Amino acid sequence: MDSSKVQVPVLKDLNIDNITENTIIINSQGNDARLKYVMERLVTHLHDFARETRLSTSEWMAALNFLVRVGQISSDVRHEFILLSDILGLSLLVDAIDHPKPASSTEGSVLGPFHTHEAETIVNGQEMTSDPQGEPCLVICKITDVQGNPIQGVKVDIWETDSTGHYDVQYSERDGPDGRCVMKSDDKGDFWFKAIVPVPYPIPHDGPVGQLLKLLNRHPWRPAHMHFMFEKPGWDHLITALYLRGDPYETSDAVFGVKQSLVVDLGRADEETAQQYGVQVGSKVLRHDFVLVSDAETEKLRDENALAAMKKLGRNVKLLNHLPVPDLD
Amino acid sequence: MDSSKVQVPVLKDLNIDNITENTIIINSQGNDARLKYVMERLVTHLHDFARETRLSTSEWMAALNFLVRVGQISSDVRHEFILLSDILGLSLLVDAIDHPKPASSTEGSVLGPFHTHEAETIVNGQEMTSDPQGEPCLVICKITDVQGNPIQGVKVDIWETDSTGHYDVQYSERDGPDGRCVMKSDDKGDFWFKAIVPVPYPIPHDGPVGQLLKLLNRHPWRPAHMHFMFEKPGWDHLITALYLRGDPYETSDAVFGVKQSLVVDLGRADEETAQQYGVQVGSKVLRHDFVLVSDAETEKLRDENALAAMKKLGRNVKLLNHLPVPDLD
Repeated sequence: MDSSKVQVPVLKDLNIDNITENTIIINSQGNDARLKYVMERLVTHLHDFARETRLSTSEWMAALNFLVRVGQISSDVRHEFILLSDILGLSLLVDAIDHPKPASSTEGSVLGPFHTHEAETIVNGQEMTSDPQGEPCLVICKITDVQGNPIQGVKVDIWETDSTGHYDVQYSERDGPDGRCVMKSDDKGDFWFKAIVPVPYPIPHDGPVGQLLKLLNRHPWRPAHMHFMFEKPGWDHLITALYLRGDPYETSDAVFGVKQSLVVDLGRADEETAQQYGVQVGSKVLRHDFVLVSDAETEKLRDENALAAMKKLGRNVKLLNHLPVPDLD
Repeated sequence: MDSSKVQVPVLKDLNIDNITENTIIINSQGNDARLKYVMERLVTHLHDFARETRLSTSEWMAALNFLVRVGQISSDVRHEFILLSDILGLSLLVDAIDHPKPASSTEGSVLGPFHTHEAETIVNGQEMTSDPQGEPCLVICKITDVQGNPIQGVKVDIWETDSTGHYDVQYSERDGPDGRCVMKSDDKGDFWFKAIVPVPYPIPHDGPVGQLLKLLNRHPWRPAHMHFMFEKPGWDHLITALYLRGDPYETSDAVFGVKQSLVVDLGRADEETAQQYGVQVGSKVLRHDFVLVSDAETEKLRDENALAAMKKLGRNVKLLNHLPVPDLD
């Protein structure tokens, strides 16, 4: 729609009943159809939220001050807004919308606030953690497509906490990255490395998100898990994690990340494995195969899901760059 | 509801369709009925927003990074989240909900991000600004109840920009408060002071809110106005402003604050006025009477409006501390 077509109304005497419509009109003067649609839905929901709760001035002010604190505690190594999104279930929801998975592929999980781009690249067999207190855990993985063909040259980010449940970036005096690494799958689609057995840990709860959890009588714990992120041109970006079966927080993850298909059992190294991978007999082993989906397949599935969902909602939309915008034609 | 009654579900395999219900249940373990209701509506709208827009991961990340920037540019003298609320029409809406006005009373307007508690108390006749470039403006006001009876002893906060359109707190090297004051209405309900003629100014647009306005092809201007805030126990807290008629931004205020009843004409001091108030003949004069509403009357009107609105929305609620909560009885 040409911006010149927007008839800007007289913005006076706005009240409970007409403020939403007028805010949407004034926000519709640009040419970005997607931005206009997102802002229209945002303003509608924001205003309906206030109307349905009869939000008071003091609640409004408390909420805005809370959001300031969420922003101000954030830093290069702490993203409290991701954490807030995580505990409100938004992160899981957005991942499910944007990265739909065919039945045979590896499901996604929450990114969390602790991924960093500062990590050493290692090769098969190397250690990705220096924590001597952690219980050694050999991790042996393969990456395939949905037909079972290996995918080589996939960039894999892996990160986990140390044995006390803290990521490297949570230490103010750290020397460099630890408990994280970047690998490439080899020509058989394999990658393997030495880590430690993940432990459950509370998400950072010394900030505003922790205060909110406390107000809501919710615990801040995540079950023991190891994060994985997969990137290769042509393949849908996969952010996921593996969770240890039997963890006390397996069914009550504070950030809703657990999926049945991502819950794994640890094995123990037999003699052959111990010799082949250079670990002690009887030490812990995590074996898992990851299944990636092509960009094309994901895009097709995302488009189909989007159109089906919009139809169910009764919205007349078309897809622009694979994202819904109102269909005004 | 007793928290022990909440049956916490197994939080595994959450997906697009079941994440909302489960987030709401896990958020309902506390005993604060109002918090539970507000969180239920918040999560519902947040998730519906993501579902209706099919929000992408990159849009989600851009939004979270935007919110971090909004928090981080905020300070003791700059509240960018209030500014964001202002330009999204939320501030106007919340004020209208929380401070309903009977027909004969003074309407409210947006607080804006520039009120501070650091202001000198002055008495009738004093100046509240030291800007020699501003055009002098004598302001003569009275405060009454809806029957026209004067109200004495009302604490009045007044603040305006200097002649360049900047509030004192926008100068990094300011010595102290300027262009703002606190007064008390006298035994006739009167207060009067020397100010300058307000000028239009852009809201701060060097930060993330300014970037958003630019993306939306919106201007950041506010029409010339002077802020007033009234407080006295027993009377509903009134936040308002007076706007100059004929301002170029009178009908397109970036923060939706203008109301017809708050638009005023400036007069000029005749000989009698000049002599009585110690100003020059022909200098500008702003006369305005403010009408406050009692707490009791406001509360009654707020309750009635809330129940009527909830009924219209088909929600079964009761009022707890004058705010809606689900009626589970």
